[in-house]
Amino acid sequence: MKKGVVEVRVRYAETDQMGVVYHSNYLNYLELGRVEWLRSLGYSYAELEKKGVLLPVVHAELNYRFPARYDELIRVETEVSSIGKSSIEFSSQLFNEMDALVLEGKVRLVCLNADAFKPISIPEDLRIIISDVMNV
Amino acid sequence: MKKGVVEVRVRYAETDQMGVVYHSNYLNYLELGRVEWLRSLGYSYAELEKKGVLLPVVHAELNYRFPARYDELIRVETEVSSIGKSSIEFSSQLFNEMDALVLEGKVRLVCLNADAFKPISIPEDLRIIISDVMNV
Amino acid sequence: MKKGVVEVRVRYAETDQMGVVYHSNYLNYLELGRVEWLRSLGYSYAELEKKGVLLPVVHAELNYRFPARYDELIRVETEVSSIGKSSIEFSSQLFNEMDALVLEGKVRLVCLNADAFKPISIPEDLRIIISDVMNV
Amino acid sequence: MKKGVVEVRVRYAETDQMGVVYHSNYLNYLELGRVEWLRSLGYSYAELEKKGVLLPVVHAELNYRFPARYDELIRVETEVSSIGKSSIEFSSQLFNEMDALVLEGKVRLVCLNADAFKPISIPEDLRIIISDVMNV
Repeated sequence: MKKGVVEVRVRYAETDQMGVVYHSNYLNYLELGRVEWLRSLGYSYAELEKKGVLLPVVHAELNYRFPARYDELIRVETEVSSIGKSSIEFSSQLFNEMDALVLEGKVRLVCLNADAFKPISIPEDLRIIISDVMNV
Repeated sequence: MKKGVVEVRVRYAETDQMGVVYHSNYLNYLELGRVEWLRSLGYSYAELEKKGVLLPVVHAELNYRFPARYDELIRVETEVSSIGKSSIEFSSQLFNEMDALVLEGKVRLVCLNADAFKPISIPEDLRIIISDVMNV
Repeated sequence: MKKGVVEVRVRYAETDQMGVVYHSNYLNYLELGRVEWLRSLGYSYAELEKKGVLLPVVHAELNYRFPARYDELIRVETEVSSIGKSSIEFSSQLFNEMDALVLEGKVRLVCLNADAFKPISIPEDLRIIISDVMNV
Repeated sequence: MKKGVVEVRVRYAETDQMGVVYHSNYLNYLELGRVEWLRSLGYSYAELEKKGVLLPVVHAELNYRFPARYDELIRVETEVSSIGKSSIEFSSQLFNEMDALVLEGKVRLVCLNADAFKPISIPEDLRIIISDVMNV
């Protein structure tokens, strides 16, 4: 599984008066793509946080290609594009039910110590999982 | 000031594809009404929380009268309807710029210890402020 | 199926700094419970809207029993508690993975003509489906 | 006024369990910065939309520098970085009350016909206002 594939259905609350998904909500879909992919690989982001490690977003880049609409089932495809000592960059593509490209996004996360909000190395078990999917 | 009066402008993100404010977002307006009223009385909810006291909502009742729309300036009027040992009930009315009643809401909050999530007495300084406004 | 049962996983964006789900977000879960239940009965809310019928919330009542937390799988149980000429009232109960009652909620929706925002009778096909589940 | 300056107070609903503003919510602050700046220049985005012109976001780039927290008053500084036939690019910087840089963001909007969702030229009155602020 070099790529994670997750489906998310657009909620009414996520639309705006243009009749499409409000632009900030796609960042939530990208997060679901990452978290559910990790879950499918046996890794729980929630558990990571309980161990005192945070993974906040430090950079995001979004290209909106085609609006998603209420009740559509959006396919979120996620890849790791690079990994550093403390940071991971994910690249994602969203598609609608007609297979039209909805959005392309890149998000960089950095590993922080929850107490001090200071960068730390990516935990070894997470690094192994990510290296494995990158080398598929 | 028996009643707090605060204005909030409807954001684009708060609308849905019906072209009106999505129904859950009114709870945010009610909270703004409470928090800004307390601020105008010299009381900071943020400070309260830093002292280890939480005030979560345990009950809410909302009657939707007339839809609020994007960019409208909504007037939030807030009163305390009752106060108990650990709980406070606020009653709110929202009006639009034409003075039409938008929503009536009631919210009950309970004072909790942040560590144990257990009910505690309302802090004395907050009780005094609230008793004062109730007796105006 | 007198009762709809749907599961929804708590998203990071839905938590607040208390470490639990922010209180307005439960209204989204209630909506998911209704919409997915109708879908399982062969009825699409999205299709209804495309025919020019809206179903906005006009009343909501929420009792918060136990906080839901990030990544928990919340079970949303939904029933129709009453049906009128133009309105439907749903009663919902939310449970966490430990089967603790998280929230009890009641929501009344009213059928509106999308053009004029005026009440209309509940469409016959929807009324039949709802009467059927109420009489199970 | 080459630069728009608007203040926005962080809401409880915008925080997450990390105790900071959830990363997607900054896009809302950027929008407030643009909309309120235009309002201060005598231009209403809401009016533009009523005339059948939409201005959706087609590209966004966010660099998160320092977390914003509940109840902080965030200063949103907005500039137009470029203007094309149908598109406008805004650059924004957010600062907290200690004057720390919170976020740098760039957002490109494109002018669309509301009926067909097709690109159209930027309305002349809006182009004039924007050219004026760019030439200050």
